Amino acid sequence: MKAVVTVMPKQSVLDPQGAAVAQAMRHHGLESVGKVRVGKSIEIELPAEPDESTLHGLCRDLLSNPVIEDYTLEIVR
Amino acid sequence: MKAVVTVMPKQSVLDPQGAAVAQAMRHHGLESVGKVRVGKSIEIELPAEPDESTLHGLCRDLLSNPVIEDYTLEIVR
Repeated sequence: MKAVVTVMPKQSVLDPQGAAVAQAMRHHGLESVGKVRVGKSIEIELPAEPDESTLHGLCRDLLSNPVIEDYTLEIVR
Repeated sequence: MKAVVTVMPKQSVLDPQGAAVAQAMRHHGLESVGKVRVGKSIEIELPAEPDESTLHGLCRDLLSNPVIEDYTLEIVR
């Protein structure tokens, strides 16, 4: 069993890394590219069915900064 | 239209950030956690149907380091 946590900067937060990637993509031949945002993807191997509320607690407290980031938690069975 | 590129360290490559996250999760009450890998998630806004081969080229040349990382490209319509 696996949990995949995706942590992205909030829409309202400036993402300079994303802006730099968008600029580089335009220079590499994809002129039409719009907004780009760069976040983290965290794959967690779990031996058994996890307690989802524990996982959400860890996402909030450890894996993301709720002031500037949103996360999504996906459990892959 | 949106493209989501997920870049993860290859299985054979040491991922110290993932090891640190696994250790921290154990200390925060999830003792059973297995291997953790930390990668990047890149969301790209595109105005129209993109040329997939151009996007794959950019993933290879710009967004990932093929020596130590694998990427997946997902187009969300």
